Amino acid sequence: MSKQKGILTVLSGFSGAGKGTVLRRLLEKYDNYALSISATTRGPREGEENGREYFFKTREEFEKMIAKDELIEYAMYVNNYYGTPKAYVQEQLAEGKDVILEIEVQGALKVKEKFPDTPLIFITPPTAGELKRRLTDRGTESPEVVEERMKTAAKEARFMESYDYIILNERDRLEECVEAVHGVILAEHEKSTRNQAFIDHMKEELKGE
Amino acid sequence: MSKQKGILTVLSGFSGAGKGTVLRRLLEKYDNYALSISATTRGPREGEENGREYFFKTREEFEKMIAKDELIEYAMYVNNYYGTPKAYVQEQLAEGKDVILEIEVQGALKVKEKFPDTPLIFITPPTAGELKRRLTDRGTESPEVVEERMKTAAKEARFMESYDYIILNERDRLEECVEAVHGVILAEHEKSTRNQAFIDHMKEELKGE
Repeated sequence: MSKQKGILTVLSGFSGAGKGTVLRRLLEKYDNYALSISATTRGPREGEENGREYFFKTREEFEKMIAKDELIEYAMYVNNYYGTPKAYVQEQLAEGKDVILEIEVQGALKVKEKFPDTPLIFITPPTAGELKRRLTDRGTESPEVVEERMKTAAKEARFMESYDYIILNERDRLEECVEAVHGVILAEHEKSTRNQAFIDHMKEELKGE
Repeated sequence: MSKQKGILTVLSGFSGAGKGTVLRRLLEKYDNYALSISATTRGPREGEENGREYFFKTREEFEKMIAKDELIEYAMYVNNYYGTPKAYVQEQLAEGKDVILEIEVQGALKVKEKFPDTPLIFITPPTAGELKRRLTDRGTESPEVVEERMKTAAKEARFMESYDYIILNERDRLEECVEAVHGVILAEHEKSTRNQAFIDHMKEELKGE
């Protein structure tokens, strides 16, 4: 329905599932999307720009954001904070953009707890074998790292049923996967729970007939 | 996800909302859909064929179907029975077809009660004024009939929030409406609750890694 606020959607999936490619294609194809930009205390890498890849923060700044409840979710990896600033997401939603949060399983469940009407989408290859093949075919990961990733995947899989939607990303079928994600977000817009104002208005109007 | 069973979807909407046009276009554009064919005790009109527009039944036959619980839902209008035979729907679903049931509000709620995972879609023009205009512009309805339809719409509107999805059919935007209905049904296929077998399989596979 037009003039609706944007929808916040969480996208997760196994490392190697192809989330990044799906997201890039989605943003290329449709103009209703915005990616959420994370804040982090890790230093910028070469080519990374503040406000594009990340909002780069000092530890002190980040902890102030936590204290002021300015983050939708946050976590610490390898001694660095990573989190999702609320303000940026809310701005984008108010402009009618559908904001996609690409985060891992634990963060996803925290977002769902805080904002229960956030659809959680999980992207997965069709089989574990295919996942392993993709991780191996990258050629950048040592066999040990591939093993580590597969173990992480096994842990993450236990949370798949907490997601609202499971979307397959099959080999050579990127467009299908992108369309499925897009379809889910379109469908979310049509939910009657998101259109209560319209329903009330229509009822009122028809009463007057 | 491939090889899934079809999904039964209910489509309702005000008389004049354009449901028929939306359905025709949906079936023209995509090959995953089948319309449910109703059974009725009213006699065939010119050009109507048994098993195409309706399954034509005698009152005795129809009441036997009721007694044997062979109908998903049924109702009586103007002294004739109308209902949805289970067998035909189940055949189509088993073949992987998404079956669309175009029925009115009371029937829709009965289906939801019996099959709670059936998505209910409600098609509506953007305003009551637009609904009236469409009914009037048909030129086939007397002002009294238009008034009657508007009163029925007011009654039906009270049930809009029992529907899962509200989809606008705006003037000159048929394709948008068709895509929205299609998107909703695609999205329903991706729901984790409909993919428990896949999730279980993936978990098992990853455990073995």
